[in-house]
Amino acid sequence: MEYSIRAANVEDCKDVARMITELSEYEKLADRVKITQRDLEQDGFSKKPFFHGIIAEVPEQHKTKEGHTKIGYALYFYSYSSWKGRAIYMEDLYVMPEFRGKGIGKALMRKVAQLGLAAGCNQLNFTVLDWNKSSLDFYLSQGCFDVTTNMGYHCMCCEGEALQHLAQP
Amino acid sequence: MEYSIRAANVEDCKDVARMITELSEYEKLADRVKITQRDLEQDGFSKKPFFHGIIAEVPEQHKTKEGHTKIGYALYFYSYSSWKGRAIYMEDLYVMPEFRGKGIGKALMRKVAQLGLAAGCNQLNFTVLDWNKSSLDFYLSQGCFDVTTNMGYHCMCCEGEALQHLAQP
Repeated sequence: MEYSIRAANVEDCKDVARMITELSEYEKLADRVKITQRDLEQDGFSKKPFFHGIIAEVPEQHKTKEGHTKIGYALYFYSYSSWKGRAIYMEDLYVMPEFRGKGIGKALMRKVAQLGLAAGCNQLNFTVLDWNKSSLDFYLSQGCFDVTTNMGYHCMCCEGEALQHLAQP
Repeated sequence: MEYSIRAANVEDCKDVARMITELSEYEKLADRVKITQRDLEQDGFSKKPFFHGIIAEVPEQHKTKEGHTKIGYALYFYSYSSWKGRAIYMEDLYVMPEFRGKGIGKALMRKVAQLGLAAGCNQLNFTVLDWNKSSLDFYLSQGCFDVTTNMGYHCMCCEGEALQHLAQP
């Protein structure tokens, strides 16, 4: 199937917000999503963006029955490892179910890898849910390794009242 | 003990590189460190920095027997959650062993939390090694939660030949 991969712009935020919700439903965690189209517009397309995006798009003749032509996305930002230096972090990778198995997910990930290498990054980092075996298998088949299982790193988070409290002098 | 917490500048990179090595030795992973003082200077203090740093410093009269007054550091960068929005990521938090137990680590982490909140971040994220019980207990006591244990997220990494291969058209 014909498709294109391109940098996201502010007009894509409505579709990205829709697909973030779809992904969270797939991950069985939809109640955790607090982000809105407006948040994405402000946080990704201001002078100092917190993230960048990539869109997978199909021509009109392949649009979904709801009329969507933007059918996949990846979000990423640049990060840093104090051991290995420059890194790129892929926050999300999503392709709508009816467009899977056509290499679109891999094309999105390839683009993130290319952008990372072009910026001098040594690593592409991301997280995956341990029950999501099909995603995990895909990533492992691409030569990625599971840092949590192999080295014992756990992701930690401080938010809400705990974060407010931590910041108190 | 008297100490100060301040933003890192390019002149601190020599000491940060030293402390990165010390931390990696504590984490039993010193062979993984590829970063140099020069990398830190370029990557943290150019026009588009990949990270920012904070330094903990003691007055001359408390310097170590090797003459160090810069005795702790944290590195951080801004990141993004597609569910919860703006976030700050603490890449490292380190205090030299002889200066521990004086609240310096907490003061460094507090500064990162303050910077995150000031930038509109909803989360402070980081990783911890699962065998490092004293650090894990400290973070849990501060109200942080273990995203890997509680939600099943695993950290994944693609690097070296696998990253080069992934980027191939």
